[in-house]
Amino acid sequence: MGPHPAVAAIRLAVRRVLHDILTDHEALQTAGASRHTSHERPPSPLVLVACSGGADSMALASALAFEAPKLGIRAGGITVDHGLQAGSDLRADEVVLRLRELGLDPVEATSVTVGREGGPEAAARDARYAALDACAARHGATAVLLGHTRDDQAETVLLGLARGSGIRSLSGMAAVSGADGRYRRPFLQLDRQTARKACMVQSLPVWDDPHNADPAYTRSRLRHEGLPALEKALGKGVVEALARTAQLSRDDADALDTWASQAEASVRDATGLLECAKLYALPPAVRRRILRRAAIKAGAPAGSLFARHIEEVDRLITGWRGQGAINLPGKVVAQRQGGRLVIRQG
Amino acid sequence: MGPHPAVAAIRLAVRRVLHDILTDHEALQTAGASRHTSHERPPSPLVLVACSGGADSMALASALAFEAPKLGIRAGGITVDHGLQAGSDLRADEVVLRLRELGLDPVEATSVTVGREGGPEAAARDARYAALDACAARHGATAVLLGHTRDDQAETVLLGLARGSGIRSLSGMAAVSGADGRYRRPFLQLDRQTARKACMVQSLPVWDDPHNADPAYTRSRLRHEGLPALEKALGKGVVEALARTAQLSRDDADALDTWASQAEASVRDATGLLECAKLYALPPAVRRRILRRAAIKAGAPAGSLFARHIEEVDRLITGWRGQGAINLPGKVVAQRQGGRLVIRQG
Repeated sequence: MGPHPAVAAIRLAVRRVLHDILTDHEALQTAGASRHTSHERPPSPLVLVACSGGADSMALASALAFEAPKLGIRAGGITVDHGLQAGSDLRADEVVLRLRELGLDPVEATSVTVGREGGPEAAARDARYAALDACAARHGATAVLLGHTRDDQAETVLLGLARGSGIRSLSGMAAVSGADGRYRRPFLQLDRQTARKACMVQSLPVWDDPHNADPAYTRSRLRHEGLPALEKALGKGVVEALARTAQLSRDDADALDTWASQAEASVRDATGLLECAKLYALPPAVRRRILRRAAIKAGAPAGSLFARHIEEVDRLITGWRGQGAINLPGKVVAQRQGGRLVIRQG
Repeated sequence: MGPHPAVAAIRLAVRRVLHDILTDHEALQTAGASRHTSHERPPSPLVLVACSGGADSMALASALAFEAPKLGIRAGGITVDHGLQAGSDLRADEVVLRLRELGLDPVEATSVTVGREGGPEAAARDARYAALDACAARHGATAVLLGHTRDDQAETVLLGLARGSGIRSLSGMAAVSGADGRYRRPFLQLDRQTARKACMVQSLPVWDDPHNADPAYTRSRLRHEGLPALEKALGKGVVEALARTAQLSRDDADALDTWASQAEASVRDATGLLECAKLYALPPAVRRRILRRAAIKAGAPAGSLFARHIEEVDRLITGWRGQGAINLPGKVVAQRQGGRLVIRQG
């Protein structure tokens, strides 16, 4: 008798990603082969799982522990203590024990100090990734697996939608991200319920982070109220539709970025200034991306540059009636001068 | 003392659109001038408002009645009796009276028979637009104004999101649509509350369509439960963010369609077949659009062709391992033969 369907599903998802990691790793080894002497055996790659102790990442850890040895991969784990709740250090120690019980090695807990920049969720995320980066580097890990599920992806798309800043913010989390594609998300097409079920049938104790149910957090409100209401109105396929929207939007945004990057060279004159007539001839979606890139290059912080800023600059091209200079974040100024668009820090 | 801010807002929105209509109309007149003898005076253009008697379209009708004469535009109205509720004919007669009281002329009620194709909402919409088209043609109207607000747009984006079929379905309703840009939506950036307020302060009686509150309709569930829950989770700016997403998605989808249409010619061989190697070199977003266009050209009905179909055809290009022919809706078959992709009706 094979494993329970939920366990089979999480293992399959992890196996696929481990295969990808191996393929990429071997390509790198071959490229770097000249640096090793011929009698040195290349070390077997190490893959870490980032684990909070919650159902998603515990399921991920269990599948990694099961699949990695069969592929000659070493499997380890990290848990990050955010220090935001009393007793979070004990919690981290407990997760370390659980990961060791699964047979992972090395396993470590790392504690971080969460700042305030960008709000509590963004600050916690920044601190967490910095710690994961450092751990991965210290252990020479080839990859770090993250337990984000299709449900997390759907929530991320809705959070992006609420910003109203276009399709890049609808594209959610990537299956592969970070430097050298270090971060991998094997469960991005798997639903949360399957991960939870896999823990249950494997008798893995899981921890429900009270933050996940705390209505003070936007994501938690979305998970417990927003998404269920949306499902009730639109039908059960909403989570899947949002996840598919993420993938399609990511591909579309990538293609348009490519186009903008290629078109940019063709709309600059000999001195490097943007020519208004040539910009005018481009599709609005491409033109606005070029304007956005130019503003960022001139020093405007990407995070403070909104669609309405770019629209105003765009009107210097499409609705020219002698407007004055336009002030952008980061003291960047955009103005039209003799058929050229000048964007520079003032 | 000027008008109430809500009345000023609806009038401004209509005035802007009437200016656009005049500009387009005059361009057409000039182009067609040779057809008139010089002593004929060109007729003043007629703009109709499509009015259900609800707050949005009553506000629109009142603003049209106020603004049109100042621009030398004749203003009329149509109301469509869908025949779906007892007494809907009396309701239509009442709307006709209200529109005449506003000074609109011509005004007429037209009744339609709603079919079943595509579900109750789509069938009603199809019947309504067919009737509006016919009315506009009969009266020689230059444009038909529709009362869709920013809130309607937000709902439309969420309905598109639920389909999960990409950014075209996120792009909502266009400000200008139909043959020759006949349909115009002056309130697409105005919120429903403003339209309602404008009716109130002008003492215009409005009719609340019970369908709008009937939970049997997806849009009604979205309006009364889905969107409010989403606003509660994500904050008050959600409607505006969704409307902005619509505009950005529309521009992006247009640009990518343009790219796909241009690239298509370059990936066909001398006999017109699609070359797999050239398709492979394109960004996935562009390649998939070309595949979709090719499938539709071969006879696949656009409405039955889903993202998963196109993904499967795409794997003939990106994941070739000798797969067999792929069956698509409309008896269309896609297969790879000697480095070419053949898509034809089987």
